[in-house]
Amino acid sequence: MSVETLDDLFLHELKDIYDGEKRILKALPKMAKAATTSELQAAFEEHLAQTEQQIERLEQVFELIEKPARGKKCMGIQGLLEEGAELMKEDAMPPVMDAGLIAAAQKVEHYEIASYGTLATYAKILGLREAGELLKQTLAEEKETDKLLTRLASEINFEAEMASEEA
Amino acid sequence: MSVETLDDLFLHELKDIYDGEKRILKALPKMAKAATTSELQAAFEEHLAQTEQQIERLEQVFELIEKPARGKKCMGIQGLLEEGAELMKEDAMPPVMDAGLIAAAQKVEHYEIASYGTLATYAKILGLREAGELLKQTLAEEKETDKLLTRLASEINFEAEMASEEA
Repeated sequence: MSVETLDDLFLHELKDIYDGEKRILKALPKMAKAATTSELQAAFEEHLAQTEQQIERLEQVFELIEKPARGKKCMGIQGLLEEGAELMKEDAMPPVMDAGLIAAAQKVEHYEIASYGTLATYAKILGLREAGELLKQTLAEEKETDKLLTRLASEINFEAEMASEEA
Repeated sequence: MSVETLDDLFLHELKDIYDGEKRILKALPKMAKAATTSELQAAFEEHLAQTEQQIERLEQVFELIEKPARGKKCMGIQGLLEEGAELMKEDAMPPVMDAGLIAAAQKVEHYEIASYGTLATYAKILGLREAGELLKQTLAEEKETDKLLTRLASEINFEAEMASEEA
C-alpha cells in the first residue's frame, strides 16, 4: 500500500500496531516464563489476556473502516522484543533479570502509548468516532500497564540492588 | 559483556541508549529534510542540537562510573528509525508526510522516555547521584520534545485532513 492521504496514514499505522500486538502476544509467555517473581509473572499473564482483547479491538476498527484486518511488519516492536530476547539469554541474578524484563516491557508499552495516541488523534480528525473510542480504551489500558510496571519495579529494583551488593 | 548485577544492567542500558542517540543524530538531518513545514524542520534541527548535548551527558555518566563510552547496537531505536525511513520513501501529500514524521519521532521520544526513566531510577538506587541528575535532565528534555511534537501535530494533522479531503 502507498501512503498519500491521512486515511492511508491511519491504515498504515493500524496495520503496524496490529502486527506489533501479535508479536507481543507471542513474546509475553516467554517473558512470563523468564520472570522470577510471581507478581511479575502474573503481570505478564494478565497483560497477555489484555493484549488478546486489544487485538480484537483493532479488528473491530478494521471492520469499521471496511478494510481487511491485515498486519504490516512492525519493525519497531520487532526491535524492542529482540532486545528483551537478548536479555533473557543473560545469566542475571533473579531480581536483576526481573528489573531488566520490566525495563524491556516498559519500552514496548511506550511504543504502544505513542502508537495508540497517534491513532486516536487521527481517528478524531477523520471523524471516526467509534474507532476513536476503541483506540482510546486501549491507550488508557497501556498507560495503566506502564504505571503498574513502574510500581512493580520500585520493589524489584531495590531487591536487585541488595542481591548485587551481596554478590 | 554479561549482565549479572544491577550495575551491569545499568551499564547495559547506558550503552544501548548511547548507541541509540548516535543513530538518532544521523537520522535527524534526513527527517528535517523530509519535513515540509519550516516549524517541523526547525523542531528537528533544534532536537539535533539537543541530542548532541544529550550524548555529551551520557559521556559524562560513563566517566562518572569510570567506564569507556562505548555503545551497544540499539535494536529498538534501529527498528523505530527504519519505520521512519520507510515512510520517507512514500509519496505522501506534504502535510501527511509531516504528520507521519511526527508520529515516527514520537515513537523515538517514547523509547527515550522509557530508557532514561529506567536509567535515572537505577542511578538513584545505585547511589549514583550526579549521574542520576544528568539522566533526569535529559529525561525532562525528552518529555518536553514529545509535548512540542504533540502541539505541532495538532495543527499539522488538521492540514493533512483538509489536504486529503481536497484530493
